[in-house]
Amino acid sequence: MSIQELINQIHKKKSFLCIGLDVDLEKIPAYLLSEEDPIFAFNKAIIDATQQFAVAYKPNTAFYEACGIKGWKALQKTVDYLHDNYPEIYTIADAKRGDIGNTSRMYAKTFLLDMGFDSVTVAPYMGKDSVEPFLEFQNRHTILLALTSNEGAFDFQTKKVDDLELYKQVLTTSRTWKNSENLMYVVGATKAEYLQEIRKIVPNSFLLVPGVGAQGGKLEEVCKSGMNKDVGLLVNSARKIIYASDSSNFAEVAGAKAEVLQKQMEEELRQL
Amino acid sequence: MSIQELINQIHKKKSFLCIGLDVDLEKIPAYLLSEEDPIFAFNKAIIDATQQFAVAYKPNTAFYEACGIKGWKALQKTVDYLHDNYPEIYTIADAKRGDIGNTSRMYAKTFLLDMGFDSVTVAPYMGKDSVEPFLEFQNRHTILLALTSNEGAFDFQTKKVDDLELYKQVLTTSRTWKNSENLMYVVGATKAEYLQEIRKIVPNSFLLVPGVGAQGGKLEEVCKSGMNKDVGLLVNSARKIIYASDSSNFAEVAGAKAEVLQKQMEEELRQL
Repeated sequence: MSIQELINQIHKKKSFLCIGLDVDLEKIPAYLLSEEDPIFAFNKAIIDATQQFAVAYKPNTAFYEACGIKGWKALQKTVDYLHDNYPEIYTIADAKRGDIGNTSRMYAKTFLLDMGFDSVTVAPYMGKDSVEPFLEFQNRHTILLALTSNEGAFDFQTKKVDDLELYKQVLTTSRTWKNSENLMYVVGATKAEYLQEIRKIVPNSFLLVPGVGAQGGKLEEVCKSGMNKDVGLLVNSARKIIYASDSSNFAEVAGAKAEVLQKQMEEELRQL
Repeated sequence: MSIQELINQIHKKKSFLCIGLDVDLEKIPAYLLSEEDPIFAFNKAIIDATQQFAVAYKPNTAFYEACGIKGWKALQKTVDYLHDNYPEIYTIADAKRGDIGNTSRMYAKTFLLDMGFDSVTVAPYMGKDSVEPFLEFQNRHTILLALTSNEGAFDFQTKKVDDLELYKQVLTTSRTWKNSENLMYVVGATKAEYLQEIRKIVPNSFLLVPGVGAQGGKLEEVCKSGMNKDVGLLVNSARKIIYASDSSNFAEVAGAKAEVLQKQMEEELRQL
C-alpha cells in the first residue's frame, strides 16, 4: 500500500488507530479454545468488530511463534483475511528483525512478499546493510525502531553518541540509506516529550507509536508533538482493546473501546 | 547444556567449530528438492558428516521462516535430530530477537523451552528488560549482539557513546543485568583487532564468532586475541562448509571442509 492510500484511509475513517493483535491463548475467552484455530477465531472476531475504527493491524510475531506451526498458520490466515475482506487496511508484521545483508533479504521477502504484509518492524543495531534489503520493495514499508516504549530504551537509545542521542543517530543516519522514503519509525508514546525532537529530524515520516493505553502514553500529547500535515501517526493499542473483556461479547466490547479511541482521534484530526 | 559441558565437548573433540545451517533451497543440491522435506534431508546429511568435527550447530531462523510452515517444521526436526542423536552438541537459534519484556518472554520460551535450543541470539537495542527474560533459564544461554561482522556494524556499534563505543557499552551494561552469567556475545571475526578490547570487558564469557570463512576473518588472529583459559570461543562457518559442493557427495565434502577447520582448531588449542 502506498503512503497516500494510507493517508486517504485515515481521513476517510477519521482514525489513525492501529490495533495490536498480540494474541495470548491464556488471555482470550476460554470458550474459543475449543475452536479449530482459536487464534484466528479471536482475530477474526476482533477485526470484524473494530475495522471501521482502525486503519491498521499489527500482529506481533512473538505471540504467533510461541504457538509453533499453528501460530504461523494463524498469522498467515489473519493477514490474508485482512487483505481479502478489508483491502484498504494497512498491515504491520511486528517482527523486529535485522541481520546481515543476505539474511535480512530473506526476512524482507518472507514478510513483505510471501506473507504479504504492507510493512515490517526492523531493529537498527546492525546498520545500513541490515536494513536496506527491506527498503527495496515498492509500496512496502520498513518501520525502524528508534525510541521504544520500554524502560530499557534508556540503556542505549537515549545515550549520547558523538553528541547526539543514539535514537537521533538512527533517525539521521537512516535517512541517508537507499530507498529511505520507505522508512517509518517506532517511537514509544511513553516518551511524548521526545516527539518534538524527533519531528525536527524526520518531519515527514510516519511514526508508529505504541504505548498509548496499557503502557500509559497519552494520545493528546502524542498528537500535539508528533502530528504533521499528513497526520504522520499510527497510534497502536493492543491489550486495552483486545482484552477489554474475556466474556462472549469480547469483540463487541473491543469495538466499543476502539470507537472511543477513534472519536478522540477524530477530535485531534479536526485540529489539523 | 551447561557451559562446563560445552567446554568438555570442546576438549574432547579438539574443536570449537560451530556450523551455520543457513539452508537456502536455491543452493542445496537440486536432487534433494524431490525429498519430502529437502531442508531437513540436507541438514541431516550435513550433520551426520560433520558432527565429529563440530561442537555446535546454528540454524539462522531467517532461512527457515522464508519457507513458511515447511521451514519451521524442518527447523524443529533439525534441533530434535541433533538432541536425539548427538546430545552432547550445543544448539543455537540464530534469531536475533528482542522486544518489550512480556513479548521477549514469549520469544525466550519459544526458542529455549518449546523448541529446545540451548541458546538464542538476541539484539540489544531495546535494553535490559528486553534481554533479561531470555536470561531466566538455567543452562540456557543468550548470545547478545555486540560487534557484528557486517559493514553496517560501523554505523552505530563502533560509535562513541559517553566516551565508550556502543558495543563496549553493550558489553559493560549487560554484565550488570540479572542472570548475566547466562550471556554470551556475538563478535564478528572480520574485526579480530577488536577482540583484545572485548576480552578486557568480558574476560570469561563465551564469544560466538561468525565471519571466519566466507566473510574473510582469520582463525589464527581470532584465537590469538579472543581465546581465554576455557577456550571461550565458538567459531562459526556456514557457506564455506555446507555449500562446498552441490553434487551428490556434498555431505562428504562438507565433512572434509569441517575437518580442515577442526585440525586448525586442534593446533590452536594445543597452544592454550
